[in-house]
Amino acid sequence: MNSERLNIAYIGGGSCNFGWKLIPELANTDLCAMVKLYDTDKTCALANEVIGNNIHDRGNTRGDIVYLACDEAEEALRDADFVILAFEPGTLDEQVSQLHLPETYGIFQTGGENSGLSSVIRALKIMPLCAEYSHMIEHLCPNAWVINLCTPMAECMTVLHNEFTEMKLVGASSDTFAARELIASMVCEKKEISGVRRRDIKTNVMGISGFSWFDDITYEGESLMPMFREYAEKYGDSGYEFRINEYKSNPDADGHRVKFDLFLRFGLIPAVIDRCAAEFCPPWYTKDTKEMAAWKFSPVTVNYRKKMLGDKTSKVKKYMNGDVLPKSADATEVPEMIRALCGGGNLISAVSLPNRGQVENLPAGAIVETNALISRDSVRAVCAGRLPDSIAGLSVRHVYNRAAVVKAFEERDLDIAFNAFLNDPLMTCGLTEATELYREMLSGIRTHLLYYCE
Amino acid sequence: MNSERLNIAYIGGGSCNFGWKLIPELANTDLCAMVKLYDTDKTCALANEVIGNNIHDRGNTRGDIVYLACDEAEEALRDADFVILAFEPGTLDEQVSQLHLPETYGIFQTGGENSGLSSVIRALKIMPLCAEYSHMIEHLCPNAWVINLCTPMAECMTVLHNEFTEMKLVGASSDTFAARELIASMVCEKKEISGVRRRDIKTNVMGISGFSWFDDITYEGESLMPMFREYAEKYGDSGYEFRINEYKSNPDADGHRVKFDLFLRFGLIPAVIDRCAAEFCPPWYTKDTKEMAAWKFSPVTVNYRKKMLGDKTSKVKKYMNGDVLPKSADATEVPEMIRALCGGGNLISAVSLPNRGQVENLPAGAIVETNALISRDSVRAVCAGRLPDSIAGLSVRHVYNRAAVVKAFEERDLDIAFNAFLNDPLMTCGLTEATELYREMLSGIRTHLLYYCE
Amino acid sequence: MNSERLNIAYIGGGSCNFGWKLIPELANTDLCAMVKLYDTDKTCALANEVIGNNIHDRGNTRGDIVYLACDEAEEALRDADFVILAFEPGTLDEQVSQLHLPETYGIFQTGGENSGLSSVIRALKIMPLCAEYSHMIEHLCPNAWVINLCTPMAECMTVLHNEFTEMKLVGASSDTFAARELIASMVCEKKEISGVRRRDIKTNVMGISGFSWFDDITYEGESLMPMFREYAEKYGDSGYEFRINEYKSNPDADGHRVKFDLFLRFGLIPAVIDRCAAEFCPPWYTKDTKEMAAWKFSPVTVNYRKKMLGDKTSKVKKYMNGDVLPKSADATEVPEMIRALCGGGNLISAVSLPNRGQVENLPAGAIVETNALISRDSVRAVCAGRLPDSIAGLSVRHVYNRAAVVKAFEERDLDIAFNAFLNDPLMTCGLTEATELYREMLSGIRTHLLYYCE
Amino acid sequence: MNSERLNIAYIGGGSCNFGWKLIPELANTDLCAMVKLYDTDKTCALANEVIGNNIHDRGNTRGDIVYLACDEAEEALRDADFVILAFEPGTLDEQVSQLHLPETYGIFQTGGENSGLSSVIRALKIMPLCAEYSHMIEHLCPNAWVINLCTPMAECMTVLHNEFTEMKLVGASSDTFAARELIASMVCEKKEISGVRRRDIKTNVMGISGFSWFDDITYEGESLMPMFREYAEKYGDSGYEFRINEYKSNPDADGHRVKFDLFLRFGLIPAVIDRCAAEFCPPWYTKDTKEMAAWKFSPVTVNYRKKMLGDKTSKVKKYMNGDVLPKSADATEVPEMIRALCGGGNLISAVSLPNRGQVENLPAGAIVETNALISRDSVRAVCAGRLPDSIAGLSVRHVYNRAAVVKAFEERDLDIAFNAFLNDPLMTCGLTEATELYREMLSGIRTHLLYYCE
Repeated sequence: MNSERLNIAYIGGGSCNFGWKLIPELANTDLCAMVKLYDTDKTCALANEVIGNNIHDRGNTRGDIVYLACDEAEEALRDADFVILAFEPGTLDEQVSQLHLPETYGIFQTGGENSGLSSVIRALKIMPLCAEYSHMIEHLCPNAWVINLCTPMAECMTVLHNEFTEMKLVGASSDTFAARELIASMVCEKKEISGVRRRDIKTNVMGISGFSWFDDITYEGESLMPMFREYAEKYGDSGYEFRINEYKSNPDADGHRVKFDLFLRFGLIPAVIDRCAAEFCPPWYTKDTKEMAAWKFSPVTVNYRKKMLGDKTSKVKKYMNGDVLPKSADATEVPEMIRALCGGGNLISAVSLPNRGQVENLPAGAIVETNALISRDSVRAVCAGRLPDSIAGLSVRHVYNRAAVVKAFEERDLDIAFNAFLNDPLMTCGLTEATELYREMLSGIRTHLLYYCE
Repeated sequence: MNSERLNIAYIGGGSCNFGWKLIPELANTDLCAMVKLYDTDKTCALANEVIGNNIHDRGNTRGDIVYLACDEAEEALRDADFVILAFEPGTLDEQVSQLHLPETYGIFQTGGENSGLSSVIRALKIMPLCAEYSHMIEHLCPNAWVINLCTPMAECMTVLHNEFTEMKLVGASSDTFAARELIASMVCEKKEISGVRRRDIKTNVMGISGFSWFDDITYEGESLMPMFREYAEKYGDSGYEFRINEYKSNPDADGHRVKFDLFLRFGLIPAVIDRCAAEFCPPWYTKDTKEMAAWKFSPVTVNYRKKMLGDKTSKVKKYMNGDVLPKSADATEVPEMIRALCGGGNLISAVSLPNRGQVENLPAGAIVETNALISRDSVRAVCAGRLPDSIAGLSVRHVYNRAAVVKAFEERDLDIAFNAFLNDPLMTCGLTEATELYREMLSGIRTHLLYYCE
Repeated sequence: MNSERLNIAYIGGGSCNFGWKLIPELANTDLCAMVKLYDTDKTCALANEVIGNNIHDRGNTRGDIVYLACDEAEEALRDADFVILAFEPGTLDEQVSQLHLPETYGIFQTGGENSGLSSVIRALKIMPLCAEYSHMIEHLCPNAWVINLCTPMAECMTVLHNEFTEMKLVGASSDTFAARELIASMVCEKKEISGVRRRDIKTNVMGISGFSWFDDITYEGESLMPMFREYAEKYGDSGYEFRINEYKSNPDADGHRVKFDLFLRFGLIPAVIDRCAAEFCPPWYTKDTKEMAAWKFSPVTVNYRKKMLGDKTSKVKKYMNGDVLPKSADATEVPEMIRALCGGGNLISAVSLPNRGQVENLPAGAIVETNALISRDSVRAVCAGRLPDSIAGLSVRHVYNRAAVVKAFEERDLDIAFNAFLNDPLMTCGLTEATELYREMLSGIRTHLLYYCE
Repeated sequence: MNSERLNIAYIGGGSCNFGWKLIPELANTDLCAMVKLYDTDKTCALANEVIGNNIHDRGNTRGDIVYLACDEAEEALRDADFVILAFEPGTLDEQVSQLHLPETYGIFQTGGENSGLSSVIRALKIMPLCAEYSHMIEHLCPNAWVINLCTPMAECMTVLHNEFTEMKLVGASSDTFAARELIASMVCEKKEISGVRRRDIKTNVMGISGFSWFDDITYEGESLMPMFREYAEKYGDSGYEFRINEYKSNPDADGHRVKFDLFLRFGLIPAVIDRCAAEFCPPWYTKDTKEMAAWKFSPVTVNYRKKMLGDKTSKVKKYMNGDVLPKSADATEVPEMIRALCGGGNLISAVSLPNRGQVENLPAGAIVETNALISRDSVRAVCAGRLPDSIAGLSVRHVYNRAAVVKAFEERDLDIAFNAFLNDPLMTCGLTEATELYREMLSGIRTHLLYYCE
């Protein structure tokens, strides 16, 4: 394993969300790296520089990681060995039309980033930026490994790849973490033990990016599929809640009823949280707020996002003044991925990649999530098998929708994206209303649509 | 071309619908055949025997076709050279729940046979019968060519094939006829000529069975795509009606607005009538009766079907008493297909076959409609090309739904079919209501579901 | 069908070979065209101009075809509606090394143009020219239909396509004609009738270009496969000769023993003459001249080609002086193809196209021969089915070899083509000798290899 | 990981070859197992029982493995958790015709088991036995993992699978070990270090079974491809020998010239020893014994095999009398595979499996070798990528040949296997001689061909 100082460019993520998970994790590895931070909001990048270097200065870390905020993206990217893409254009206020306007047409979204009408809007905003970064990477660090965290994952990865086809690109997400944590809890409860962690739960995962499934889960060499069935059957109606009614105020907590229902219906375990899974389906679980409540989950709202942002902002000063960012033991697997790519041993991790056969019955080229064998300078998908036909049927429409969204970008033609919008599973309007709704939603982000007018 | 008398088994179709088109057409070919008629309603078969032989007895026909009603299907099938399957189980009264019950849940169907919630119900009824016929054909006439007219076409063909994999099977439908007639009319109007017939319009057709598209239409070696675009742009909003407002009372007449809209949106011309195309899409055109009216088409209702049946029944006596069934010049292409299969020259005709590459971007094995080269003892699909991604996206979900319906048959498990029901594009209910609706619709045909209880 | 005068560019073919077949055939159609002739040997083009116009001037023809020899290829190509490519670089003397040098290494070729070591050499010579024409066509007549007759067919078509991907390209060959004529003769003999022509024999054809097979042959709606088996079994050992021992002096005559052997071994009928089929196989039939004689065919030699050329040259003056070129009723199907592409009705004809599924078990993109439906501005392959595994196994190696030859062109790297040379089925040398042989053969055409040195 | 005593059935291998590698290895794991030995030669099985239990009795081992020789295969297989198939029918004397008869026809084989004319003969002998074991496994231990070591690997695995499609089957071979050991040696030499072992060399491997390739090799996170190129260029002509001229007497030693030549020609490193790689190619390296000697390898002969067998037999008594079988540290990876399949952690190992996309450009279903992720009750191939076209071209013909050999088994028709024989790359005879040779070779094993006469 290379022992020189690595150059890691970290683009976006200034809003603390992902950065604050990554910083303590990196400190905890044996990597030696310079992390160059770039965010359109320089204040954020600077804050993260200070917070990151604080940890380093205290010593008592395994890694040797220094942070530097950059004025320009080019500065961060030049000669990078790794690029982490974690940006998101637009303001929370702009998300109002994206998330809530459809409600006036009787369409309820759950806030997911990879499906729903909002994901089309989101993609239209972010794809031109992805293309710009792709070109910069081609010129400034063509050999870098690019770890994408931007969403919608599929559209971003496809654009990144299409614009620089030689890019070494892998998508990382924490989508599957909650499901594995749920299973770890079940193991503890069932076996009356403690200390089982997410990473102790081994899975075979497959599906389109954002809507993936487990068909095999084990703990210490024992299959947990029978245990999961037991829970699903027992708690399918009532839900299985860690904290009763938490789901009402926390969209990331849920009663797992959607997971149980999909499992009992289709045979595989959804690898994502309930509100995300729900949004990939027709309005079975999201018909209206009552239906959602019955299924024991609540949607992400702009108000909720604002509250979360407020909480974080208030902590920035504290950490800048010297409080050490608390460890969040395994909030991401990005440091392990970097380590493995540097030659630090094999890693099996769930990632997003273009399908080259790892999911047999999804179209070639679709961005899919499966395990991969990550080793020195290589990421190779593990053949995950076939999705049951019924799940493939639910998934493939998204593949085509995503392709239409990407094509809208390529041809700078918003009408093409409208076809994806129309064909989203949540769309229940007639054509007239759907047309209106699309116009209004585009209007809400019009400052981001200059690219499409050229 | 073989000159011995052919044995043609004609199963079902007693309700006059298809038979009355075929009888005069057969008379008009140079075929020499014995047509054995079998229908569960023997009266119908007998009526057709008389009506068919009446034509023969008058002479003045090219063909030498005699008709014989049979008491048992086996009798009709034994040693058949050709088998025409045209049966439909159940009564019109039973169709009330199939066609109209979903309206109470806010779901409006248009009466199509190949899509919509009703097609799931329809398939559940007919698949066990298909399997029975498949077995009989295997034993009584394994070398016969089987021309399927039963619907839903895809499910019927898949079951017929799965149960007797060596069956020489081809699906014939008149789905594309109306669209070609429309185009023929446009040509007459535009060129100020008359006498252009459906068969003068050459097309390249592709798509899943029931939802096929033209990407190339010609008349006397001239492309008509520009002409069609002209009409679509001119009449897209107003509709293009042969008889103003006829669509209000006749579900087979329409203003072609759906066709124009889909063409302008996706680039290909739907090869089916508007209400059928509409039913393959999300509720864009079928949100409610008002939306349908705005698009200038009306759904088929049970009342309408009863009226049609009444009209026909009243004519039976007339034809039995000697009136000659009028020619309907080219209402089907079945006689030409039989002729070509006997070695009477090459025929290019649009048929349904399992996809083996003729539509590049639909799954292998899906029942698709394309042109085929039909010649002595062979039907070979013509490579039709690729569907645009957006149309493929609309189509593939149906492929998976149809697969689920067939699997429900194979595993005698109605829950599997429910997944197709849930995932039908018209389904806009939450899961609770959808479950109720399915139960009620099954209840409406419970006498046909014995097979699934074994 | 368009009634204006068509522009047809005819490139090469000056050596009379193909031109003399085409000229009387064109005269016999109802086409109205200007044929612009270009050949690097202007004398040839001029001779054909005179000979072609002679026919026209005599009247008594259906078509209205005038000929004009051009000084430059560009002149012939500008605004062409159809382009016929029929050129072949190099002299007969140069063919000595190509055809006969391997004999000194114990390798006997039969003179075929689509396989054998010589085809690699042939391809290396012609591919740069194909690329030039491709570029000219792109600029001068991008909408023209290009009918390729140059060989090796697969390499030429792939280069033509790769260099101008929008080219409307179809490969026409007379490869299958002799086999159909043989079958027509068998029918006459067997049925004691006369006048059965090649075009009366309907076939389903499939295989890689140059090595295609019939799995279905009919005459007037009757399968001839049983008849062919009878002949194969009866004449498999003795051969079936029209004129006893003609094969000894005429490489285009043969005893059909190879065809019979391959048919009995693999189940399909080779659609090409024996010496061509033999050359696609390991040295089963071509081990040495004795083996070839035992199988009743003889190879094409340079001496034979010179003699043929001499014969033709001596006739040129005669035809230029007014003798009318005799009809060779259906020596090609090019005029029919042109007619069909102009909208003059459907044509089913065997052509070479990139595989898009028409032969199920050959790789996508490989140039394959199957029937196609040719109609106004479109050529669509007919799905021909699957080759038996054993034939696919014999064929696929050629697909890869051809790909290597094309790659050698693209990368201007003769070493890449050496891999195809090494892997040709006739290659029985050790690596040392093979290397020597390749160098010597390249040396024989070194004046044509400038392109590879740039 | 399951802690009960495992049942492992070990079928064949009595000739000490593989068993003597496995026994000490098993002793060295932490497995607890009963190994039931069955061999048609009961003496051998008994010897292995004693030798195996000797090790156990001495203690000082990590594992707890007991051995039991069985009278019947059924006894060994009943309720097995793992089945190791390592049998080989026939005597060494019978191998004379298989290995040496072709020499009289000018065809030189190298003794490989997975290619060459001999592999066809070998397959014909062993396939009926594979089918028998398949049926026994289906009835006696359907849930067992079957680890196949029988050759020819592809044919054996295909038959095993076809006869019991639910079998959990994986092919293990030591094919790639020597190449990795070579690379380990180069690393030691180059870096002037010692102790680098085979397992420290990480590779990406892909290809058909028996003819696989590395496109990526690393040691401690450093790519070794540049180092290998250096060696190939330096030693391509002279060879790189551990012990000068050892290759003359030891067919498992070689000068690596074939590997270097194939690497320089095609870009990937052959993962097998030279004589095996040579036999998958046309007679480039095997034209005659002189050519082989020039490439610095020698073929396996029956005499050599007899000598090896003699050596081993003489040692049996010694080990039975108490001498402990020496460790051969990592002669196989079978114990690790068993451990991983029991849930003892993830293992990445090169195995043979049917292709489901792990090698993109080899046909689906072909038995291919790639890395796999082996974990509790699952073996999942790692997507290895695409072979270069030229290597795919060399490989695919074997896929078809192997399919023909399997078909010969299924249809009990030796003529079908003859097509594979004819199409083997080493075949340079004309058809007449080839036919003779095949008959003679079959005659040499006629006692094993009863199955084909039923």
